[in-house]
Amino acid sequence: ENQARRTKRARRPKPCSLRELELTVSELGLGYDSDETLLLRYCSGKCLEHRQNYDLTMDHMVRTGFKKKGRKDKVSNGPCCRPIAYEKQFSFQDNKHLHHTVRNMSAKNCGCV
Amino acid sequence: ENQARRTKRARRPKPCSLRELELTVSELGLGYDSDETLLLRYCSGKCLEHRQNYDLTMDHMVRTGFKKKGRKDKVSNGPCCRPIAYEKQFSFQDNKHLHHTVRNMSAKNCGCV
Repeated sequence: ENQARRTKRARRPKPCSLRELELTVSELGLGYDSDETLLLRYCSGKCLEHRQNYDLTMDHMVRTGFKKKGRKDKVSNGPCCRPIAYEKQFSFQDNKHLHHTVRNMSAKNCGCV
Repeated sequence: ENQARRTKRARRPKPCSLRELELTVSELGLGYDSDETLLLRYCSGKCLEHRQNYDLTMDHMVRTGFKKKGRKDKVSNGPCCRPIAYEKQFSFQDNKHLHHTVRNMSAKNCGCV
């Protein structure tokens, strides 16, 4: 009983939310070499409860409907968990002591869009 | 020369845009049985030019960064081509002459979100 409940809970998808991870600037993959650290905030999780009739229709169209009509369109079949605002710019020094500023890199809020 | 140019143009990804397709209501896959037709509008295409530093970072994190940090988060690594507004409700009769109204099924405008 307990085991069954734990298993069920573990399978429930996590909703779209803001998550964070401490990284060095080098680890961002943007091409900067810097050991300065930052808190990267990003959006992840499911948007199941935000699905509209549009998404149900697209799910059907992607699976069978488009093919019958001779179309190959790729469409999203559900809302996307995306930043709806970004943190203000982030400034840092690289390992050669040069200053850089990066915008729109860390999420401030997430939404199902 | 001509062949090369045609090939190049064909490979350029189509940007996110509103597309349309004439369907019967039955073909929508929403479970209604109706031969009435409608123009389904939907969003498809790429959002490459809308990518931010966030998306470049997420692309890197998904490929290598999250694994190094012991995370399994799924994140979008680019803006989504999605409806930003829906057409007003659509009403129809099914094949048993019952009336139905469906909302938020057909896109009015698309955006890279």
